Parts: sequence; C-alpha cells; structure tokens
Amino acid sequence: MASKLLVDIHTHVYLPRYAALLRSRSTVPFIRSSTTSDGKLDERLLILDHEPSGGRPVGPQYWDREEKLKFMDKHGIDVSVVSTANPWLDFLPASQAHTLASEMNEDLEEYCSTSPTLQNLPIRRLFGFGLLPLVPEITTTSLLDTVKQISRLPHLRGLIMGTRGVGKGLDDESLDPVWAAIEAAGLVVFIHPHYGVDPKAWGDKDNGHVLPLALGFPFETTIVSALRHLCGVFDRYPSLRLLLAHSGGALPQLSSRLASCIDHDPVVASRLKHDARYYLGKLYLDAVAYGPEELGFVSDVISRAGRYQAGSSVTEAANRSLGSRRMLFGTDHPFFPPLSATEKWTSVVENLEAIDTVQGWSPADKDGVRGGNAVSLFNLAE
Amino acid sequence: MASKLLVDIHTHVYLPRYAALLRSRSTVPFIRSSTTSDGKLDERLLILDHEPSGGRPVGPQYWDREEKLKFMDKHGIDVSVVSTANPWLDFLPASQAHTLASEMNEDLEEYCSTSPTLQNLPIRRLFGFGLLPLVPEITTTSLLDTVKQISRLPHLRGLIMGTRGVGKGLDDESLDPVWAAIEAAGLVVFIHPHYGVDPKAWGDKDNGHVLPLALGFPFETTIVSALRHLCGVFDRYPSLRLLLAHSGGALPQLSSRLASCIDHDPVVASRLKHDARYYLGKLYLDAVAYGPEELGFVSDVISRAGRYQAGSSVTEAANRSLGSRRMLFGTDHPFFPPLSATEKWTSVVENLEAIDTVQGWSPADKDGVRGGNAVSLFNLAE
Repeated sequence: MASKLLVDIHTHVYLPRYAALLRSRSTVPFIRSSTTSDGKLDERLLILDHEPSGGRPVGPQYWDREEKLKFMDKHGIDVSVVSTANPWLDFLPASQAHTLASEMNEDLEEYCSTSPTLQNLPIRRLFGFGLLPLVPEITTTSLLDTVKQISRLPHLRGLIMGTRGVGKGLDDESLDPVWAAIEAAGLVVFIHPHYGVDPKAWGDKDNGHVLPLALGFPFETTIVSALRHLCGVFDRYPSLRLLLAHSGGALPQLSSRLASCIDHDPVVASRLKHDARYYLGKLYLDAVAYGPEELGFVSDVISRAGRYQAGSSVTEAANRSLGSRRMLFGTDHPFFPPLSATEKWTSVVENLEAIDTVQGWSPADKDGVRGGNAVSLFNLAE
Repeated sequence: MASKLLVDIHTHVYLPRYAALLRSRSTVPFIRSSTTSDGKLDERLLILDHEPSGGRPVGPQYWDREEKLKFMDKHGIDVSVVSTANPWLDFLPASQAHTLASEMNEDLEEYCSTSPTLQNLPIRRLFGFGLLPLVPEITTTSLLDTVKQISRLPHLRGLIMGTRGVGKGLDDESLDPVWAAIEAAGLVVFIHPHYGVDPKAWGDKDNGHVLPLALGFPFETTIVSALRHLCGVFDRYPSLRLLLAHSGGALPQLSSRLASCIDHDPVVASRLKHDARYYLGKLYLDAVAYGPEELGFVSDVISRAGRYQAGSSVTEAANRSLGSRRMLFGTDHPFFPPLSATEKWTSVVENLEAIDTVQGWSPADKDGVRGGNAVSLFNLAE
C-alpha cells in the first residue's frame, strides 16, 4: 500500500556532471584531490568560505546512484525524492547557470526514470527536485523556461533552491512571475540553507562543523522564511507549496515572537493580511529534527495556524495529529555519515525513532510522516 | 501566599545614572534629544550600530521607578526582579566600567530596598540583578570584587550579562574563576542578548526592528548558550544557575540537531560528559515566548534532560509538568509598549495567556511559572 511506504524527501546527490565541475575548480565550491601516504585517493569537498577541518571527505555516496539505492535498502527506504546538494548553481555566471540547470534537470530525470520500481507497486524508487538557474543577472525568461522544463520532466516533482534568489533573497518582488509559474505548475519548492550566518558568530574556538551546521543552517532557513512571510508571498500565492528543510529551522519556536514583533510595528503589520503564525500552517516541513519533542512541537505550530487567520474565531488548542500531515521524513543523506561502519546510520535511526515516539501522533499519523504525506504531496502513485 | 505571587523576572531599567551617561554621549549607545515641532522633548535611544527607525522613543518608563510600579500595578505584578537593559557597560573602558558597575549596583540596591512591601507579605516589590564590569582588559580581581559586592547587597539576587564576556564570549576559560565565584555565591546569572547577528542577514528591505528583535536576539542567545555547552561549563560548575532570556531563543528547538552534530564530530564530543540535551535541563528559562505551544515545548525539552545523561537508562517521554518548574514569567518591560493607550500591554497579556493555556500544565504548574518558581529561585520570601 502506497500509504505505508517509507519515503525520504531530504536526500541529496552531487550528479556526476556537477561533481566533475567541482573537481575542475580551485575556489569554493570545489573538490580537492590528493593522495594519502598509503596511496589512496583523498577527495575533499569545500563548499563554504571558512570550511572547517580542511573540507568534508567525499566519495561515491555523493554521486553514485548505486550507493543511494544501497543506502535506501539498508534503511528500508522505499522511495527517495532526491535533490542536488548546496550550493547548487549559485556561484556560476548566468549563461552557464542556465545551461547547467537544464542539463542537470535532464540528468536527474534520467537518474530517476531508469531507477528500479518497487517490488509490489508500479512506482519508481527515485524521484527528483530540479534546479533553477537562480543567480544574479539571470533573465526571468530563463527562470520561467526552466520551470516549464521541470514541470515537463515526469520524475521531477519539485525544485530545490537556496536562500539568495537572484542575489536579493527570496523576498525579492522580481521573483513574483517565478512563484506564479511554480504555483501554476503545482511544483513543490524545497527551500534549503547553504550560507548560514556570519561565521564570526561562532567565536574563536575550533568546534568543527558543529555550529555552522547545527545553528547556522537553521538560522538561514528561519531568516529567509520570515522574510518571505513579511513580503506577503503567501497572500499573493496562496497555493504555493513550500517545503522547509530541517523542520523549518528555528521558525516554529520563534513564530509567536515574530508575530508579536510584527504587531508592534504598524508599518510591517500593515503589509500582511494575517498574523505571522497563520502562514506557518501553509508550509510543509521535513521531519529532520532528531527528537520527538521537536517534531511534536512543529506539528502543534502547523496545526494552530487556524487560530491566527484574520477574523478567526477558533480558540482551540493545537491538534498535532492534524499538523503531522504537513511533515515528511528525511535523512539528509549523504551528510551525517556514521563515524564507524555500522549497520544503520545513527542520523537516520534517530529521525525514525523520533517519528515513532512523538506523543499525540496516532499510528496513521506516523505512517503519514514516514511516507504517506510524501506520496500525496508529490503524487508518487501517479 | 508567596507561591501565588505574580513575579516578573524579565524587566529592565535604565537607572538615572546610566541614562545620564547615555545622554552625554553621541555615539552608540546614546540618547539623542530633540524638540518636536510642537515644542515637546523627543528623546530617542540608539543602542545598535544599525538602529532602524531613527531610534526608539524613550521616556520615564525607562528610568522612573514610579512608572515601573504603576506598570506592575496595572498588570497585577506583585514583585519584579529588575535588571539593567542592554548594552550594560560593554562600551566602556575597564576602569570606568568597574566604577560604574559598582555605583549602579548600589543604585539598584537602593531602588529595591526603598521600594514598598507587599500588602500581605513582608516582601519588597523590587529586587534586582546586578552588573559586572565585563569589558576587555578588566582584571579578574575587579570581576571577583564585583561578584562579592553583589552578593553582599541584600536585594540583588543575581546578575545580568550579555554574550561577549571580556571580549571573547562566554566560552572563554579566563572567566572560570568568575563562574566559580558566582556558583559559590548562589547568584542567578541572567544571560541576555544585545548584538544579534550580522545585520546583512536581514536583507535589503526595511522591516523596522522586527527581524533583529524577533530573530537576531534569540539567535545570539542560542549561539552563546551552545558555545557555553560546548566548552563544558556545566561539567565544571554543575550548580551554576543560568537563566536564559526569551525562553532560550532557538536553543530548545535546535538542541537535538546540536546533539547530533556534536555526536558526528568526535573532537567536540570528547570534550563533553553528556549529550548536549542533558545540559538544557540545568537551565532556567523565562516564559517570554508569546505562545502556549512554545512554552509547553520548552518545558518538554527541560524535562527530557534525564534521558540524555551519560549512562542514563531513562526512556520515558518528556514530562512538561516537571519542566515547568524551571520556567519563569517575564514581561520585557519597558520594551514592546502598546501602540495605543490601552488598559494592559498586549505583550504582557499574551505572555500571561500563553502560560494559562499550555496543555499539560496543572494549575499548580502555572502558579509556579507565574511566580512560585521565582520565589524559590531568588529566595524572595527570605
């Protein structure tokens, strides 16, 4: 039954064409190759200007489809909706970005369309999020053409994007035609961080990747989401389907504070139709938060949105069962690999256990978060 | 009964001595005075380098004790534990910071000790958090002398500090003797943000104070708390009583992600005795989050700490009733004033309603958060 599938909607790939580009470069983002003292190839991925620990060791997990399928098999994942990992095309000039986006969308379609089908259901095991050439100086026509391309490729069911848009963030009105086209095409937009915040914030001590990843990434998602809310994008495109990485970062916990700060600023408040908390109920959030209390809370915040619709007379408590319907399992593969060769990855086990132990979610709610919600959102059974 | 009091532990003052200093300055932080077209005095407070909206209008609410008491009466607040507002003494040279800290601690003691007592209980209506001269080049002796001064002033029950320490943050080992002294004196440390994060993060559009306040402040608190955890301060000073502003910012929602990122970095993990989530159970958090779901979640996160103690065999679900005992009502007065002259301040009403509507808190738990917990933590009945 499709509603019982385990579907991973937060799982990345560096397609071979993209990995080759990164290998050809010597400034961030790039892959640096060297040979270890015992003669092995050592490839390191550097994607940030202040990359800690000399870069991240990378290997076939990052580009090889067989590795993705093996990882899925090991964890009982039936279907993955795969996305290119950050920083996407952000660093390229406009003409190159347009061509590469188009080529990578075709590559990803092939990656998915030639993947095996499930044993018991006529559903492929791989689907994808396409890419838009979101870089400065790109034309709106180029962006709209790429939206059209993605919507025509049968295994691409959405697109992933970072937070910079065409250089002015996602609250940039020049993107309005793009949102309109995405909304009309019914594509899911997966919003994912890359830049974090100013690394000076992490202090002088070496804490490896811990703080940029644990805090910087969620802060970036929070900021871009708050900015999008403030610019009223959901008032203009109410059917837009946005999926936020890492359970929305810190947005759920700061949403009432955000609403209160907006309320106290009449200029900002006048731009919005509803209390800021209303818009959170329109989001989809992955369930990549590593703890059951976090997931339960996020589902509370989604479900309470009705209380905050302008003119609402709803006063009921949050209903986290209802909220669970907009949450979707993810692994963040191939990131967070285990430190030693274990049967299963701790990061995946933690996220599955978290879903399984949320107080107030019924077995059906948990099935939904594990995969049923993704089957509906991405129309995987069609 | 002392356990039924309404106690505000997050309420600020710019003592007259401090306000006078700010008026004498012409760079941030300062108070700029001008005269409006109809001849009225217009005082604006500028505390940030990129202050939006030409500064914040300020008046007697910020320094006059009668205004504090009137505000308390209007909202039924019995007792307030008052703290100097940001940016404290951060901008002063060491010698001036030491003298001013000492003078302001005496001023605040007088502000409290000459305040009225409650009608039915022999408890003063005002208590205070003192100040340390935490600036670069201050000597440890000066800091320790000031801890001693505060602990001798009978109405000061703790101290407030920002996030920069003596210029190297709060994970700076040179502060260890200060933590030891504070722990020994049983003073509560109220950690409060001021700097936020790099304002470039807020994009190009003018959203007033909304984003620096709604997101920047909590991010700063989250970062400094994470850094303190990473440096193992609670492993070395397990009885230290730390109170985090704004319900810990985003730390609760990002704590499992933080724990996972630490787990995946053996160098960082090896510095800590416990899973990062354990340390959150040692914190006190104000209940200044403006929504009941937020407060319930924060109490979940506090209460689950036992699961994450090294070697723990606890597997129980979070117990938010237990977690509520480390949460304390606050208003953030005189900030977030109402836009129009209303009977009560919306920001205060929201925080009280949030406490009142948390699912899973008993009436006794709610009394605790409203005041009973503060009576115990600050020994107000003694």
